[in-house]
Amino acid sequence: MRLSRLFTKTARQAPNNADSLNADLLVRAGFVQQTMAGVYSYLPLGLCVLRKIEVAVREEMNALGAQELLLSALSSREAWERSGRWGTFDVLFHVPGAGDQEYALNPTHEEIVVPLVRHFVHSHRDLPFACYQIQTKFRNELRVKSGILRNREFLMKDLYSFHQDDACLERYYERVQEAYGRVFDRLGLAERTYRTFASGGSFSQYSHEYQVLLPQGEDTIYISEAAEARGRRVAINSEIYRKGETVCPVTGGMAFREACASEAANIFKLGTKFSVPFKLQYTDDGGQSHPVVMGCYGIGISRLMGIITEVFADDEGLRWPLSIAPAAVHIVPLAREVTEKAYKEAEELLARLEGRGICALFDDRLNASPGVRLADADLIGVPFRVVVSEKTLQKKKLEVKKRQVGETEWMTEKELIALCNPSPPSPLPLRQERGG
Amino acid sequence: MRLSRLFTKTARQAPNNADSLNADLLVRAGFVQQTMAGVYSYLPLGLCVLRKIEVAVREEMNALGAQELLLSALSSREAWERSGRWGTFDVLFHVPGAGDQEYALNPTHEEIVVPLVRHFVHSHRDLPFACYQIQTKFRNELRVKSGILRNREFLMKDLYSFHQDDACLERYYERVQEAYGRVFDRLGLAERTYRTFASGGSFSQYSHEYQVLLPQGEDTIYISEAAEARGRRVAINSEIYRKGETVCPVTGGMAFREACASEAANIFKLGTKFSVPFKLQYTDDGGQSHPVVMGCYGIGISRLMGIITEVFADDEGLRWPLSIAPAAVHIVPLAREVTEKAYKEAEELLARLEGRGICALFDDRLNASPGVRLADADLIGVPFRVVVSEKTLQKKKLEVKKRQVGETEWMTEKELIALCNPSPPSPLPLRQERGG
Repeated sequence: MRLSRLFTKTARQAPNNADSLNADLLVRAGFVQQTMAGVYSYLPLGLCVLRKIEVAVREEMNALGAQELLLSALSSREAWERSGRWGTFDVLFHVPGAGDQEYALNPTHEEIVVPLVRHFVHSHRDLPFACYQIQTKFRNELRVKSGILRNREFLMKDLYSFHQDDACLERYYERVQEAYGRVFDRLGLAERTYRTFASGGSFSQYSHEYQVLLPQGEDTIYISEAAEARGRRVAINSEIYRKGETVCPVTGGMAFREACASEAANIFKLGTKFSVPFKLQYTDDGGQSHPVVMGCYGIGISRLMGIITEVFADDEGLRWPLSIAPAAVHIVPLAREVTEKAYKEAEELLARLEGRGICALFDDRLNASPGVRLADADLIGVPFRVVVSEKTLQKKKLEVKKRQVGETEWMTEKELIALCNPSPPSPLPLRQERGG
Repeated sequence: MRLSRLFTKTARQAPNNADSLNADLLVRAGFVQQTMAGVYSYLPLGLCVLRKIEVAVREEMNALGAQELLLSALSSREAWERSGRWGTFDVLFHVPGAGDQEYALNPTHEEIVVPLVRHFVHSHRDLPFACYQIQTKFRNELRVKSGILRNREFLMKDLYSFHQDDACLERYYERVQEAYGRVFDRLGLAERTYRTFASGGSFSQYSHEYQVLLPQGEDTIYISEAAEARGRRVAINSEIYRKGETVCPVTGGMAFREACASEAANIFKLGTKFSVPFKLQYTDDGGQSHPVVMGCYGIGISRLMGIITEVFADDEGLRWPLSIAPAAVHIVPLAREVTEKAYKEAEELLARLEGRGICALFDDRLNASPGVRLADADLIGVPFRVVVSEKTLQKKKLEVKKRQVGETEWMTEKELIALCNPSPPSPLPLRQERGG
């Protein structure tokens, strides 16, 4: 992508309404724009990051044997009344329709997926299975804050699993936890993400959150020091933590340290909470009916983009992990005219990289000063910035700044290409069993 | 995909609420489910078709130099008041928010994209360019009908172009028409799609619709016979057609024949209708300000899925063009046990096809009768059905039913693979100019 053709532009000044580091940097770098408070649009570079987070999540969901579908954003008032949540789900948008209709704008999809699945599940032979979607959710928040971290409209992955009994749910729940570990690994967040025990509701002792350490995060978690000593990242959320009483469910230890964090994902055992009101049942071997046992598993896709922004950004701007960066390389030819050798060499480098499937930004804005262009490269935060100049041509090497560590190195094109093509983390092979 | 693992199932009976051929077949074949009247969810096979239509459209938009972004579904009441459409856009959902807020649930995105673009366009040097998205739209329809053809929630591609003057808009408008021609060609609809002249509103003599011939279509168009004689598909929509008065804008002829059709796309010259109220201006060479001139270009993605369904379906079920079929091949081993040779050979064929990147459905439901399985293959409508049996193994050839034409042929695996890999239609190479 040539920067002169990108219709977005970088800005030096923070936007007036920036309420957080991620809003400030993502807007200034041209990744997002606010439509209104708590509602954002994603510009070309930002959409690219969002899609790459989706890919990482989708591959791990497919590896679990989960089937992708796309549920609707609107649903009927009746469905939410049947689950008892029309009047009690505090951030549910109630949408007046033509005539005397009233709809819900879905903040989560149990009310939609359970009646849908009821068309297909009759026997124990239809179980277990899981399905998921990556879709826009809506929440009627009174106040919004933190840029794209807490929005009225946001992108989520939601997975639902369906089982005969608790034991089967338990096995799948464990496998999803492993898959979530791989997702956070791929996004560069593994070392700061804590599997956090939270209230389990009426169907299990605990649910789980995935909390990412972040000094400006809005949640407080209590990290188990005994678990950490064994190389495991386990925490308790503040809602269920009682100082001097809480025991780590993994280690039994009672030593915790407090930390600020931001929730990126959560998983719940729903049990039969939704299958009972919607009569989602199966018949067993002996012809007896039972309600289906369910789990639900969320990951905040757009929220993760905000968290990753805040985790990695520095004073100069964004710093993207290679796995989700809008490009791997940002080429800056230090030339004044397109006829100069440095410009031509840079263009040829771009073509060679793209020929190898490596995505690159090319700063062809020759009317902008080198200082502005180098500052923009830092602000946009692509992993490898390559300057091509008379000096680098003489040296016959590339001057590569590694944005993550801030160091500049001289290297060959081959070495740069090797950096851009790390061996991809491989999702688990598709299993032969049916989803469970 | 093994059919035993797919959580959806086919149904013999039409759903109670089927109001059209597409609703009947897509629901029975397990492609979609109705959430409520006018709102559908897309199941794994249906989502696959939807994504393939998206890819065909996206590649042609990228080839035009248009930049993809993702705009929000919610917007502020103020934005719609500024354009004068809050109270006048008859199917606009007004959504009450927390406090005394009120939002729009966007049926189209001029009110969102124009203020967004205003952040980036200042000078004539920032023009022309175009941006597009593939996103969910909402319309508060009093009545809905025709399955996924006219919904309260549906998937659209909307492209917006920005220019200095009418001449530049005109050139881009022509290029988009060419791109739309390629889209309909890729979807197998070219020969029955008519570029249809419609009312141009306040900024040009005509707008254009892309109408697909369909006996059960809700629109009436008047096909220019003189244009047809020259091999061009041109029509006039009923809104502006006057018998004995209307002249074909392309040929000057006055002979027309009436036909039923369904609208799949439309394009408008917006002129300065939105840039004036939102103050989207640029300064020219001499420092003078002018409003930006705009075009907008829609394609109904989910609507196209419904149109394609109705255009190609026959009495046995769906018939997908290869370009958007959920799979190229549907393998039916006629075996009772997984230990039989026919089953093993079929499984090996599946592995070889998938190894070549050819997507296949594999009907491993050995407890279902051959009749049910062959009927399901017809209902799901994948282009090539391959039966593997003792008989086909003896012949050492594959028995391939071409679903589109209904004929069965004996062929080699190599011949089947060649059928599944037609040379792809190539989008125009990316141009060097900036969008326009």
